[in-house]
Amino acid sequence: MSKSPVVQSVEKANTDYAANFGEKGKLPLPPGRHFTVLTCMDARLDPAKYAGLSGGDAHVIRNAGGRASDDAIRSPVISYKLLGTKEFFVIHHTDCRMVLFNNKIMGDLLSKSLEQAVVDENGWRDVGQEPGSPEGAKIDWLTFTDDRQDVIDDVKKIRNHPLIPKSIPVYGYLHDVKTGKLEEIKEAAEIGKAA
Amino acid sequence: MSKSPVVQSVEKANTDYAANFGEKGKLPLPPGRHFTVLTCMDARLDPAKYAGLSGGDAHVIRNAGGRASDDAIRSPVISYKLLGTKEFFVIHHTDCRMVLFNNKIMGDLLSKSLEQAVVDENGWRDVGQEPGSPEGAKIDWLTFTDDRQDVIDDVKKIRNHPLIPKSIPVYGYLHDVKTGKLEEIKEAAEIGKAA
Repeated sequence: MSKSPVVQSVEKANTDYAANFGEKGKLPLPPGRHFTVLTCMDARLDPAKYAGLSGGDAHVIRNAGGRASDDAIRSPVISYKLLGTKEFFVIHHTDCRMVLFNNKIMGDLLSKSLEQAVVDENGWRDVGQEPGSPEGAKIDWLTFTDDRQDVIDDVKKIRNHPLIPKSIPVYGYLHDVKTGKLEEIKEAAEIGKAA
Repeated sequence: MSKSPVVQSVEKANTDYAANFGEKGKLPLPPGRHFTVLTCMDARLDPAKYAGLSGGDAHVIRNAGGRASDDAIRSPVISYKLLGTKEFFVIHHTDCRMVLFNNKIMGDLLSKSLEQAVVDENGWRDVGQEPGSPEGAKIDWLTFTDDRQDVIDDVKKIRNHPLIPKSIPVYGYLHDVKTGKLEEIKEAAEIGKAA
């Protein structure tokens, strides 16, 4: 089977990247700047660029919403415990799709069809023909309604987790997708400060 | 309280980034190239570079190991269902720390201390004074022993998940941290192909 245009373009980009890999092949495994960023999977975000990361600098954890899910606790614990990071950043962003649905909407949409849903001023609707699944109703989709409060909530969750040392500061920021700016969320910083 | 050197450098880098943000503030929310990458948090990896992503191109999900954890199912389901992605890449890498421990080792280390552990030819040991926590023994750390088999396992898990449409191909690759090259894992490609 021939490769899709996306696969071909990714493989071509990688060939070019590897051809100019240079000294990057000698980077040590532990993050050189000893910190970890938890942020959203959003396609507009490039944490290496918005936070100034070079290869080998920092761990980057990304998921839908940049949420401190159970798995987003597993990863920073490995990050500090086995790889020596000492500061954590939680960085959410404006205009996140996570505010535009909730568990009820997502469970209903997935029960009707596994194809893409569309959204307009009348809300979400399914247009696909592929059958749905009841499994979507069993998942907590970790949506939120306020992008600042959500940063505070996630910093609090990490700060209070029994496996996160009190010596590690947890910072909270909101990335503005219109300007590229990181705004420090002061209340999160207060909650997340190291003891 | 004054800001740490890391925070100062991140904020400085962001100020420079935002000053040259240009047209990036107008990028649409849905990924323009309609695909999603699941990869490791490792500091040496820059998915935007190794896969040739520009701003707005693709969703990027990252965690310790690039594993298809329950949360790494939540995110791609949101990615295709609400944001229209149509192809998934699972990209692990060589020299991953996840092969150097297991649930027993991690549970034991965390029960002794929440500070960084060190590893040498005699294995892992705790050097910190901060007390530990029994919570670490309750978590599945999603370690693995073979970096190719692990790609296959994660592609299989995504392929067989009831909320992932059979129309979405799931590709598996291994990124070589010494060369920057992506190696397609053929067995994963076979398992992950679209129906």
